[in-house]
Amino acid sequence: MLGNCLENVRRKTPLVHNITNYVTVNDVANALLACGGSPIMSDEPDDVADITSICGGLNINIGTLNQKSIEAMFIAGAKANKLGHIVLLDPVGAGASKLRTDTAIKIMNTIKPTIIRGNISEIKTLALGFGTTKGVDADSADTVTEDNLDDMIAFTKNFSKKTNAVIAITGAIDLVADSEKCYVIRNGRSEMSKITGTGCQLSGIAAAYAIANPDDKTKAVAAAVCVMGLAGEIGYTNLLPGEGNSTLRNRIIDTIYNMSADTLNKGAKYEVR
Amino acid sequence: MLGNCLENVRRKTPLVHNITNYVTVNDVANALLACGGSPIMSDEPDDVADITSICGGLNINIGTLNQKSIEAMFIAGAKANKLGHIVLLDPVGAGASKLRTDTAIKIMNTIKPTIIRGNISEIKTLALGFGTTKGVDADSADTVTEDNLDDMIAFTKNFSKKTNAVIAITGAIDLVADSEKCYVIRNGRSEMSKITGTGCQLSGIAAAYAIANPDDKTKAVAAAVCVMGLAGEIGYTNLLPGEGNSTLRNRIIDTIYNMSADTLNKGAKYEVR
Amino acid sequence: MLGNCLENVRRKTPLVHNITNYVTVNDVANALLACGGSPIMSDEPDDVADITSICGGLNINIGTLNQKSIEAMFIAGAKANKLGHIVLLDPVGAGASKLRTDTAIKIMNTIKPTIIRGNISEIKTLALGFGTTKGVDADSADTVTEDNLDDMIAFTKNFSKKTNAVIAITGAIDLVADSEKCYVIRNGRSEMSKITGTGCQLSGIAAAYAIANPDDKTKAVAAAVCVMGLAGEIGYTNLLPGEGNSTLRNRIIDTIYNMSADTLNKGAKYEVR
Repeated sequence: MLGNCLENVRRKTPLVHNITNYVTVNDVANALLACGGSPIMSDEPDDVADITSICGGLNINIGTLNQKSIEAMFIAGAKANKLGHIVLLDPVGAGASKLRTDTAIKIMNTIKPTIIRGNISEIKTLALGFGTTKGVDADSADTVTEDNLDDMIAFTKNFSKKTNAVIAITGAIDLVADSEKCYVIRNGRSEMSKITGTGCQLSGIAAAYAIANPDDKTKAVAAAVCVMGLAGEIGYTNLLPGEGNSTLRNRIIDTIYNMSADTLNKGAKYEVR
Repeated sequence: MLGNCLENVRRKTPLVHNITNYVTVNDVANALLACGGSPIMSDEPDDVADITSICGGLNINIGTLNQKSIEAMFIAGAKANKLGHIVLLDPVGAGASKLRTDTAIKIMNTIKPTIIRGNISEIKTLALGFGTTKGVDADSADTVTEDNLDDMIAFTKNFSKKTNAVIAITGAIDLVADSEKCYVIRNGRSEMSKITGTGCQLSGIAAAYAIANPDDKTKAVAAAVCVMGLAGEIGYTNLLPGEGNSTLRNRIIDTIYNMSADTLNKGAKYEVR
Repeated sequence: MLGNCLENVRRKTPLVHNITNYVTVNDVANALLACGGSPIMSDEPDDVADITSICGGLNINIGTLNQKSIEAMFIAGAKANKLGHIVLLDPVGAGASKLRTDTAIKIMNTIKPTIIRGNISEIKTLALGFGTTKGVDADSADTVTEDNLDDMIAFTKNFSKKTNAVIAITGAIDLVADSEKCYVIRNGRSEMSKITGTGCQLSGIAAAYAIANPDDKTKAVAAAVCVMGLAGEIGYTNLLPGEGNSTLRNRIIDTIYNMSADTLNKGAKYEVR
C-alpha cells in the first residue's frame, strides 16, 4: 500500500530545493505545499550551495535552462551529492535542442541523480544520447502501450541499472522502476496534457516523497506518480460545465491538498512487474 | 466567418516558440494549450535557434526583457526569418523606457515581424520612434474611440503598409489591419484590464492562429482577437458572487478551451473596413 | 478606521515597480490589480531606472535574487531614493543563505527602505546581522506569541527607530510599527501558509497602500496587512468541499478585488500599542 508514503510526507514536511523553469514554477511550489512538502527556489550560482544545504533534496528541471542556471545546477548538484541528498532530474525538452540534450546527459553523468523523471522521448534521449522529442511533449512514435509494455519495462529497468537511479517514465501508462522491479501505473487522464506543468509538479512531489521515504525510493516515486494521476482523475470528475484546463489545474492541486492515505490506497491503479 | 480559423488551429496543433516575460508566461502556456496550440518556452541564446527550428512560429514579448533574452530574441528571430516562420512582436512597455523602445524598434526593423500586437501607446511608440506609455498600460490620451475611428483605421493600415506586418491594436475597440483591410472588433470586457496578461495570452494565441491559417494571416489574427474578447465576455457572465479578477482569469482560459467554431461565429462582433 | 486607506488606493491607482521573484510574480501582479493598484515588473539593470521613474514606488523582493537582479535592485533603489519614492524591502529567505542575508542588509543600509516586510526570522536576521531562517518560512522558535508580545512590540519599534522604516512582521500575529506606535493585527488564517506567495502579494499591496497614503505610512501598511488577512479569512469561508490551497489562492485575490472600505472597517482586527 502506498498510503504510508503519503503520511510520511505530511509528517516530515520535506524541504525541497527547486532549480526549475519559470513557466510552471508557481504550480510546482503550490503542488509541493499541497502534498505536505515545503518548496524553496534558487538558481543563482552564488546562492544555491547554501540553499541546498538546508534542504532534504534537490529537484533539477531544465525547462527554461540558461547558462547561469546550468552553472547553478552543477554547483547545487555537487553539494547535494556530497551531503547525500536526493537529486531528481527532470530533463524537459531533452532531444529538442543540443543544449538541453547535452546538459541533461552531463547532469546524469556527473551529478548522478537519485531519480530521473521524464516523458518517454526525453528518457530515450538520455539513454541513446540523442533524441526526437517534439518540443516538450513526447513523440507519439515512442508511446508506452500495452503492446510494447514488456519491452518498455525491460528498457526502464536496464536504464535504472545503468544509471543507478529510479527511472520514472510518465505518459498514458506510467513506469517507475529500479533495476529489479517496475511499477506499471494506470492512473491519470489525457486532459492533463492540456495543462502546462503537470509533469513539473510531479517531479517536485516525487522529490518530496523520496526524501520522506528514504528506505524505498522506488515505491515513494511510484506513490507520487499515483497521487498525481489520481488527482487528475478526481479533479476532472469535479469539473463543472464550462470549466476547462485552467480550472482543472486548480482542482488537481486542490485534490493533492486534500488527499488522504486512504484515498490513495483505494484509487491507486498499479501492478509491480 | 472566423470559425474555420479556430478549427484549423485545433486540427494542426501549431507549436509556438515563446520568448516571453516571466510574469504571465504560465497563462500564455495554458492559453495556447486551451486554444489548441502547443507552447514551448526558451530564452537562452544558446538554445533558441534549435527550439525555434522545430516550431511553426515565434512569439517575442519584451515584457521583462533582459540583455540575455534580447540577444536570444535576435538569434531566434533571424532563424525564424530564415525558415520563413511567423514572427509576432508584442512590444510590452515600449515608450516606458529607452531600452524597451529601442529594442522593440530594432526588432521591428531587423527581424521584420509578420504580426505586431500591442496597445495603442505601444504601437504609436513604434510608429513614431518615441512614446508616452503609462507603464505597461495604454495612455488614456491615445485611446481608440468611435470619434477617432476613421483616423485610427487609416493609421493602422498605413503602419501595416510601412512594416509589411499585420498590425493588431487592442483596447476597448480592437483594430487588426493589413494595408488594405481593417477588422474593427468590439468584443471584450473592461474587466479584462484588471487581469495581468490578457494581452500576452492573446499574442500567443494570435501566433498559433497565424501559423495554422497561413493564407490569410490578417483574418487569423482577427479571429484570435475575437476569441480572446469573446472569452472575456463569456467568462465574465459565468462569474459567481464574490468572484473577481483571479477567477475571471481562469474562466477566460476555460472558455477558450471549450470554444467551438459555432460559438465564435455567433459571438464575434466585427466589421471589415 | 482603515477603510479610507483602501479608498485612496482605488482612487489613485498607484503604479508600483516590482523587482520580485519569478515564483509568485503573477500573483503579485494580480493582487496589485485587485487592490486597485497597477503593477509593472522590470529587473534588467539597463531598464530599471527608467521604469522606476514613472512609478510611485518600488517593491524589492529578493525571493529568487541573482547577480543581475541584485544589480538592478541597487540601481532602481538609488533612483527611487533620489526621487523620494516609497521603497519596500521584502527580504525573502534572509538568514537562509549568505547571499540573501548580505544582500538584504546591504539594501537596508544603502537604499534605506521606507518599509521592510518579512517574517520574524527574516526581520531578526536583518536586526542581528545573521539568522536561522528555515528556508523561506519562519523558524518556529521565533514566533510572535501572546506570551512574548510586549517584547516583540518593543523589538519592532526599536528596529523601526534604528532603520527609520515602517517595520511589518507577519505571522500568526502581525506587527506593523514605527518608532512610536505598533499595530498588533490578528486577521488571517493558518491555511494561508499553504499557498506560495501570500507574503509577496502583501508586500506589493503594502507598497501600493503606502504610495496612496503618504501622510501615515504606518497606518497604510497596517491597512494592507488587514486587507490580506481578512481576504484570507473570507476566502477560506468561501471554500467548497474538495477545494484546497490552489482555489484558496484565487479566492483571496478575488476577495481583495471585491473588498470595500466598509468590509475592511468591520473585519479588521487590530489594536494600537
